[in-house]
Formats: sequence, structure tokens, C-alpha cells
Amino acid sequence: MSAKIDPARLAVVLVRPDSPENIGLAARGMANAGVADLRLVGLDRLEAPAWRTAIHAEAVLEAARTFPSLDEAVADLRLVLGSTARVRHDFPLVSLTDAAARAAEYPAAARIGLVFGNERTGLTQAELGRANVRFHIPQAGRQPSYNLGVAVTLALHAFVFPPGPLPSPRRELLLTHAEQAEAGRRFRDMLDSFGFMRDTNRAFITEKLQDIFFRMALTAKDRDVILAMFRKALEGPRERRPRKRTVKERS
Amino acid sequence: MSAKIDPARLAVVLVRPDSPENIGLAARGMANAGVADLRLVGLDRLEAPAWRTAIHAEAVLEAARTFPSLDEAVADLRLVLGSTARVRHDFPLVSLTDAAARAAEYPAAARIGLVFGNERTGLTQAELGRANVRFHIPQAGRQPSYNLGVAVTLALHAFVFPPGPLPSPRRELLLTHAEQAEAGRRFRDMLDSFGFMRDTNRAFITEKLQDIFFRMALTAKDRDVILAMFRKALEGPRERRPRKRTVKERS
Repeated sequence: MSAKIDPARLAVVLVRPDSPENIGLAARGMANAGVADLRLVGLDRLEAPAWRTAIHAEAVLEAARTFPSLDEAVADLRLVLGSTARVRHDFPLVSLTDAAARAAEYPAAARIGLVFGNERTGLTQAELGRANVRFHIPQAGRQPSYNLGVAVTLALHAFVFPPGPLPSPRRELLLTHAEQAEAGRRFRDMLDSFGFMRDTNRAFITEKLQDIFFRMALTAKDRDVILAMFRKALEGPRERRPRKRTVKERS
Repeated sequence: MSAKIDPARLAVVLVRPDSPENIGLAARGMANAGVADLRLVGLDRLEAPAWRTAIHAEAVLEAARTFPSLDEAVADLRLVLGSTARVRHDFPLVSLTDAAARAAEYPAAARIGLVFGNERTGLTQAELGRANVRFHIPQAGRQPSYNLGVAVTLALHAFVFPPGPLPSPRRELLLTHAEQAEAGRRFRDMLDSFGFMRDTNRAFITEKLQDIFFRMALTAKDRDVILAMFRKALEGPRERRPRKRTVKERS
């Protein structure tokens, strides 16, 4: 189900979009996904408001090309996928994720076009007929369909970013399992030394602490901060620190 | 990895959003996902432009509640997930899909809040610290981050709609395998009867046609249309229809 298409293979084709703001928002979504090839059908030029919403995506708008027809706009592409907000039953229609999976079946040399129609009217039946694959972005009800710029962003997101974890989101390794267990025991011993445990609850609290420490999945730094912090808290304000008492006891 | 959270469990919390249009776009994305609970932090009231972008999502805006602080906004929620555009390494950060998977681990009674910060500044470190889980929506580069309304829509999409096929996108069953093979043979026989095949290529063309017919995954209606259409094409214009010649031959 997961797919990861090189964004350089993707082109976005907007057919007769009404709103320049939506074109700008689509361009921003393209920049978010690293897609640069924007093609506009049935427009002479881009109106100024497009630049207002194309934040950090000015280059996408500047490189955009206009075409008189959909056929001309997609002539050089190998695989054309048409978006439709209406779930029709008279031709095969796949979900967005399945469209991305389908695209991933083709060789990396095949360039791919994602085609979106006008905000109100969508693609015509004839235009959908020019697509190799027609896809629908799932939504809760029939109304409203997605904003055009949002639909482009959602679609590119599904094509470019596979579901899964972030690449190396953390720099630090977790503790080893033995170290995690040891951290739980050290915490228990600390509680014990401050008189927080009784013989009747020691086994229960020990087990519970182990569980909590494993669930926190600590790094070495996390463990040191937590143990130091709780030690401070248990020791209480400086004037009645147990260490002082210990010193007194020794003297 | 896939997750499907009942949209009734979800609340969207926008902290100090600058743009009413973005609030409207977020509301539209909520309506797209069937999510109704919008909470606004640090705003006295909704400005009029919010309604311009909240197409078919007026009810979401009308039911929106305002709160003086994030803590108050999420007080009744069980699981709070904070969005951050910056990939930080000093606390655990999960991807959007992993955040959705994490949320799906909790009982269905647990209500869930997705928290998004200001368009330019995001959530503060302290606000992210109030979240049980911090998530990042993958993007190609550091700039630009997603538009706020788009980020809300992308996030809800990942939580509410599991990846996978559309529910029953087609009404018609495919042909059985035997019928698909038979359709290929009928097409071959038709070509044969019009003299398009020779003994030297018959085996090759037969095999190729079978392959093409299986790849088309036809319904009964598809098959009938295709066979009728090609028969017409092969027969050519009416004045030189083979059937006429057959009649002549018979006469």
C-alpha cells in the first residue's frame, strides 16, 4: 500500500482553475512535497493573488506552463491520473493510496501527471476518460469536497511520503534493556531510602516502577535527569535534607 | 501503520491562529473528515473571512469554542497530540502516520486533541510539553511548512481514513476468469474471421490477446461494448460489410 515516488517524476495539471489563491496553495503543496512541474490548462496567465498563497513556492509559479488542452498538457507523460470528487460507478475508480501504489508499479523513468479539474465542476467525463487511472480522495460526506489546493497537497503527500516513522528523529540511543531495568531499580531504592515503601507494598511498587520505566523508553540523558530530579524532590528543601541528617548522625 | 479513528473522538485545537481564512480552511478540512469539535485558544472571536473559506463547514465554525489557554482547551481530552513543523532532536517526535497509529492504541472512549500552533511561530516549547505525543508532518525541505488549514486537513486525513481501497467502488462484478479467457478467444476468432491472422503469428497473437484481456479486468458490460465496437470497426463501412458479402455468397 505504501508508495514513494521520486517527486521529480511528478507533474501537477490544473484544468481551468477559477481561483488564483488555490493555484498558489497548490504550488505551496508542491513545494512541500518537492514537486516542481506545474501545468495549467485553459488559463492565459497567472493572476497576482496566486503569489499571495504560494508561500516559499514562488519558483513553482514562475516555472508554471500553460496549455490550451489537457491532451497537450500531458502529451509527454507516461501515466496520467485524474482526480474526481464524485464516486462514480460507471468506470473503475481507486482510492488515493491505491493510485499511489499503482503509480509505484511503473518504472522510475515513467513521468506521472496528477490532473485536477475546476473547483466547482471538476474534470469532465471526457477529461477523466483521458486518464489511465481515476482516483478519489476519501472524505466523510459528499459535501464539501476538498479545496483544490488542499486536494493537490493531500495527493502529493500520498505519492511522495510513504507512511512510517520519521527518518532518525532522535540522535540518542535508548538505554539497553538491562540499563532500563537498572534505572527502575535505582528509582525504587531511592524511594525506599526515603521511607516511601513498606514491606507490604514493596513487591507491588517494584513491579509497577519497572513497568513505568520500560514504557518511558529512556535515553541515558532522560534517566539521569529523572533520577536527579526525583532525588532533589525527595530530599526536600535544603534545611531538612536527609544528607544533613546523615552528617549529624555521623557526628 | 494504518489507523482509523472515529471522527467523533477528535477535537482540533488551534492556538493563536493569525489568519481567519486558515481557520475556515481548517474547518472545511474537519468537515471533509467528519470532525466537528473546533477549539480556539487566544482568540476572542472569529473574524468574518473565516466563513469565506469554510465552504460547507459553517456548522463547524458556529460550534467553535474559545479558550484562554491551551490547558483549558484540552482539559477534558485524554490524549493530546501536538504538531510541530520543526524536527527537533531534544524530545521524541513521531511521524503523522505513527501518531495516528499511536492514537489507535487507546480505547475508543478516549477523546483525542490535535493541537496546531500559530502559522509563523508554531507551538511554544512549553505548549509542546503539554502534549502526550508530538508529531511532524513529513515534507520535502525545511521551507515552507504546510499552510495551517492544509496541515489540519492532512492530519485528520491520516487519522480518519485508513489507507486502502475505496469501499465498493464498482457495482459490477468482474467476469469470471473463464469468461475473461473466453472474451480473449472471441476477440481472436473475430480477428481471424476478418483475415488479420496468419498461421505464423496465430499462437503469438492469441497469447498476447489473452494477456491484454486479463489486464483489462473486464466486467460483462465492458466485454460486450469492446467486442461490439471492434466488430463494427472490422466490418468497416456498411457498403463493404463482410456480412453482405456472406449474403451474396449464400445467394
